[in-house]
Amino acid sequence: MKGQLKSFASDNNAPVHEAIFHAMMNANKGDAIGYGDDIYTLEAERKFKEIFGNDCRVFFMLTGTGANAAGLSHITRPYHSIVCSDKSHLENDECGAPEKVTGCKLISLPSDDGKIRVEQLGPLLHSVGFQHHSQPKVISITQPTELGTVYQMDEIRKISAFARENNLYLHMDGARIANAAARLNTGLADISIHAGVDMLSFGGTKNGAMIAEALVFFRSDLAGEFEYTRKQSMQLMSKMRYISAQFNALFSSDLWLKNALHANRMAGLLAERLQGISSVRITQAVETNAVFAVIPKNAIEKLQRKYFFYIWNAPRNEVRWMTAYNTTEKDIEEFVEAIRKAVE
Amino acid sequence: MKGQLKSFASDNNAPVHEAIFHAMMNANKGDAIGYGDDIYTLEAERKFKEIFGNDCRVFFMLTGTGANAAGLSHITRPYHSIVCSDKSHLENDECGAPEKVTGCKLISLPSDDGKIRVEQLGPLLHSVGFQHHSQPKVISITQPTELGTVYQMDEIRKISAFARENNLYLHMDGARIANAAARLNTGLADISIHAGVDMLSFGGTKNGAMIAEALVFFRSDLAGEFEYTRKQSMQLMSKMRYISAQFNALFSSDLWLKNALHANRMAGLLAERLQGISSVRITQAVETNAVFAVIPKNAIEKLQRKYFFYIWNAPRNEVRWMTAYNTTEKDIEEFVEAIRKAVE
Amino acid sequence: MKGQLKSFASDNNAPVHEAIFHAMMNANKGDAIGYGDDIYTLEAERKFKEIFGNDCRVFFMLTGTGANAAGLSHITRPYHSIVCSDKSHLENDECGAPEKVTGCKLISLPSDDGKIRVEQLGPLLHSVGFQHHSQPKVISITQPTELGTVYQMDEIRKISAFARENNLYLHMDGARIANAAARLNTGLADISIHAGVDMLSFGGTKNGAMIAEALVFFRSDLAGEFEYTRKQSMQLMSKMRYISAQFNALFSSDLWLKNALHANRMAGLLAERLQGISSVRITQAVETNAVFAVIPKNAIEKLQRKYFFYIWNAPRNEVRWMTAYNTTEKDIEEFVEAIRKAVE
Amino acid sequence: MKGQLKSFASDNNAPVHEAIFHAMMNANKGDAIGYGDDIYTLEAERKFKEIFGNDCRVFFMLTGTGANAAGLSHITRPYHSIVCSDKSHLENDECGAPEKVTGCKLISLPSDDGKIRVEQLGPLLHSVGFQHHSQPKVISITQPTELGTVYQMDEIRKISAFARENNLYLHMDGARIANAAARLNTGLADISIHAGVDMLSFGGTKNGAMIAEALVFFRSDLAGEFEYTRKQSMQLMSKMRYISAQFNALFSSDLWLKNALHANRMAGLLAERLQGISSVRITQAVETNAVFAVIPKNAIEKLQRKYFFYIWNAPRNEVRWMTAYNTTEKDIEEFVEAIRKAVE
Repeated sequence: MKGQLKSFASDNNAPVHEAIFHAMMNANKGDAIGYGDDIYTLEAERKFKEIFGNDCRVFFMLTGTGANAAGLSHITRPYHSIVCSDKSHLENDECGAPEKVTGCKLISLPSDDGKIRVEQLGPLLHSVGFQHHSQPKVISITQPTELGTVYQMDEIRKISAFARENNLYLHMDGARIANAAARLNTGLADISIHAGVDMLSFGGTKNGAMIAEALVFFRSDLAGEFEYTRKQSMQLMSKMRYISAQFNALFSSDLWLKNALHANRMAGLLAERLQGISSVRITQAVETNAVFAVIPKNAIEKLQRKYFFYIWNAPRNEVRWMTAYNTTEKDIEEFVEAIRKAVE
Repeated sequence: MKGQLKSFASDNNAPVHEAIFHAMMNANKGDAIGYGDDIYTLEAERKFKEIFGNDCRVFFMLTGTGANAAGLSHITRPYHSIVCSDKSHLENDECGAPEKVTGCKLISLPSDDGKIRVEQLGPLLHSVGFQHHSQPKVISITQPTELGTVYQMDEIRKISAFARENNLYLHMDGARIANAAARLNTGLADISIHAGVDMLSFGGTKNGAMIAEALVFFRSDLAGEFEYTRKQSMQLMSKMRYISAQFNALFSSDLWLKNALHANRMAGLLAERLQGISSVRITQAVETNAVFAVIPKNAIEKLQRKYFFYIWNAPRNEVRWMTAYNTTEKDIEEFVEAIRKAVE
Repeated sequence: MKGQLKSFASDNNAPVHEAIFHAMMNANKGDAIGYGDDIYTLEAERKFKEIFGNDCRVFFMLTGTGANAAGLSHITRPYHSIVCSDKSHLENDECGAPEKVTGCKLISLPSDDGKIRVEQLGPLLHSVGFQHHSQPKVISITQPTELGTVYQMDEIRKISAFARENNLYLHMDGARIANAAARLNTGLADISIHAGVDMLSFGGTKNGAMIAEALVFFRSDLAGEFEYTRKQSMQLMSKMRYISAQFNALFSSDLWLKNALHANRMAGLLAERLQGISSVRITQAVETNAVFAVIPKNAIEKLQRKYFFYIWNAPRNEVRWMTAYNTTEKDIEEFVEAIRKAVE
Repeated sequence: MKGQLKSFASDNNAPVHEAIFHAMMNANKGDAIGYGDDIYTLEAERKFKEIFGNDCRVFFMLTGTGANAAGLSHITRPYHSIVCSDKSHLENDECGAPEKVTGCKLISLPSDDGKIRVEQLGPLLHSVGFQHHSQPKVISITQPTELGTVYQMDEIRKISAFARENNLYLHMDGARIANAAARLNTGLADISIHAGVDMLSFGGTKNGAMIAEALVFFRSDLAGEFEYTRKQSMQLMSKMRYISAQFNALFSSDLWLKNALHANRMAGLLAERLQGISSVRITQAVETNAVFAVIPKNAIEKLQRKYFFYIWNAPRNEVRWMTAYNTTEKDIEEFVEAIRKAVE
């Protein structure tokens, strides 16, 4: 039980943003029909359409894993394969949900920074048409990646062009999509539908919400009948208004963007302050709200007495430090000070 | 969009109980480790153990369908069959999640009141040992049933004795277990673990919570490694403290019981008031918080302009009216008046 | 071990027909490319097209259960339901393969003679469009049924008309389709594609082959990419020529029809001879190659010392006796004599 | 259609060995109970016990993919992972059957020669106990590998020791196990049960049979109830005697060994004859019945006009040539001559 420590473990260790909590409270009045037939859900759907265009179809979900696995199952058949990075959540952190739920093979491409390169995709096509091989059907990219790095617009476009030419779908795992859009200074649609993404797992939970995930289809031919897949995937919340209210708050006054900008800025500050410390080596470009670093093993142990965070790669003594919308400059300064002492 | 109507559709149309919402707010302070390693979850687990005994293992889940299907998948192999009532949620209202998630065959036994009779179980054993047939492994009963009726203690005990003698597990779908315990004037453990139940889907959402489901194992040999099944079943909430806080509130000052007693009392009141109306025929014993009734077709249409509720069986003009913790006597009186007018 | 007894247990207890064995031997010369790219398979595919039309697509399979389950998985999504008779092989004798392989719910309709009546289908449509319910997608009928009875042409046509009107597919489990065609004095296409069937499991094994099953699609939009489903369903034989050779023999000189006519005639003869025996009550119309009968319990025991056959329904003392292409009139006369003695 | 060419494509392009065909013919007499309750199956089971010990349990299967996938599903839960080589049949050539049937994640380890090294296994244990990660449960090795190379006894023993220490199971895909035993000059048990293997997919088809695969469990706690998994996996042959007869022939007069020794010798001869040809570079140690070689692209095209074989790696112009029990020295000499001409 490490509840008392300040956490740099994950942005999901942060509490719910006040404005979001307030919106849930405002929705907590009187009866409302279950399963989405309520005014809060209607409004949230409208907001998604404002952002992503009137042709998108949005379904609210309960977990990021649920959005990914149920969504992918809906646009594949079990004899398909799904291509992802070897650093992706899909490959590493969903306890095999993608395989169990879709029946598909995952093909994970090696990557140092969590990004798929379009050059890696061509060889996968050798399997096409050969009955003994799983048939490639979906490319799934994570934006930002699990390593906090960000696909540039042209990188996404190259991958989506490849997908289109080869009759594949492009899925984006956007568990932290707000942080990527904040980083790139673009809109949410720019890095998804406008860049050629077909289906987006949109995460709100890590950006200050309590439980707010969505699956957004950008092609209506893919979305058809997804309501059944959602239900069968155990992702249909009965009191739907409470998810919807969270999205309504996130999309009011650009709260999603403010939260993401702040979290990114705090990670940037942390990275900046660490530069002077010679025994700390940052291992990934700090582009969103994560800092990956190698520090001495005994320093990890010392630090973990006061702070909670994950050891990313034990043999290498690599740790992950994440910031969130609620991280303060003071938190950073104190943490840097603690790191400095620990490595001395 | 029927958000403006008073709803007798389901107890999941009610808002979150004030005390529960308050508990969530109190938990919304500072960082907390995700996935259950927090003080609220520790407390909630302790409360479950107080109720069900120290040997139980509890896992918080996101939906009732998730608790049922993921739990059943954990205690079966795909060549097993799961026996349930033809009126059960499992059979009718989970869009095939049990089959998809477990791979098992569901065997649904015919029932007028939603209850399985122990006499129906014997013939199922003819399949045992025959390699062409799914092998019976779990009996799943719903307490109270989807029809609002309640298994008496001795009815459960007979079924659990049969299960034990024949090497089957007994699962209880307790989406509204509080209402059953309130009705029977027993504790929650009396009608589950003490009656021989092996695994319980414990529902809090329909009893005033926002999203609070749990799977409780009463045999430690069944619970082992369920954390992986939960994750793979997309039922692991990252900000777990907010589910836990809801259970903490439900189990404080017997809120669970008060809510259930009230909802039951309101359904009783509704049934009582309807007795004088000759064109309304109540079709099920009103034992918890649901009233099933046959009323003239045109009366249904009139009523649905002002109230939301489900037509249970269209050819028979049978409707379902549910009460909740927030239904008031005034709501009932006004509804009865509306019914009276509609059927005139 | 009951290998020494004459068997009336099943038509799959018969040896391989001499002409079929001979065809396999003729194919056993030199190398042949695996997985179907050989002259025997080309010929078998051509013969199927001669029978069912040039637009059909045929895939050779290893078991009847495999043809049913893999085929159904290919034309459904897991949130669909598959409607069948409660007496069907699908429901009773495939150890849950349909549920495991498709993820779908099976809806089994009650039947005395194994046939679905079109009147039973209407109520299933109440689930359509309701996200909590599995969506009906396939009606599966067995021709002849597991009880040896036969759908008349107009019965199939009514069901296929219902399917078409309601956007459902019609599957026919034709494990013994030859016996039905022989009975109805029609071609194989008449009772399948011409009667509105969309997908046919075509069985050769029970008609004198060794291992020869096929899945035939009558709509090219359903067949697309089935080669992958077959492989993933573990139904792709590497030395395919040996299945193909069996079909080539079955379709030469109408061997399939001769075998079926003979088996049917032997069952008819058995039923005829039994009429004079008062303690034997035949329980199903004898329309193909099975005789179902109720006989005294002690007679069953006596008979089973000399003959192998299945007790169909133990509480009712109902047995199943099946004939095959190799049953002789002498076999029947001796068996009738044995029955006569056993019931005395 | 390449049926007329001499094939070096695969040992499954060979016809059925005469003695095996003869044994099937001998079994083709009179009735025999289906599904394995016959004297041929009893004998085959006895022979397996003679080879692998009285405690083994053997189940006859229809395809190698079926033996692998159904077997692995039986000894895992869907949240487990299965470790294999990136060159394995499991990973590449089963169209995703392992994932679909088990629900598990496959973890494929990079390998040049198709063999897993015990040093690669340690890092996989980092996932153990972490609920977000699939839990390693089975190591699957292929003997010989898809590249024709052979695990030495001590290599298997090291891997099985690792498995045992870490509570993992060791599966051996023995689609061509006879060729490995022939190469190592050991018995079949030496390289499987005696080396610590827990479950063996035993292949007969590629060693001269028609359709003869088996799954052999060396631990009775793993085998329990596999009859249901086999049936549900669509791998239960009704006329079982014909598989059993094939195994009976293979195990008579060491036919399995003679066939394997011959096929190995022919590959060795081919490799030897190719040594003098400078533009042919053999890329894998020739240890069983496959020769992998890089030859000029235009030579591949010329050769394929007269011979059928697979291009293993198109960008590298690497081909696979396989020999079988029926390959003759003359076949080899002619083929070498054709290669010599093609590369000139």
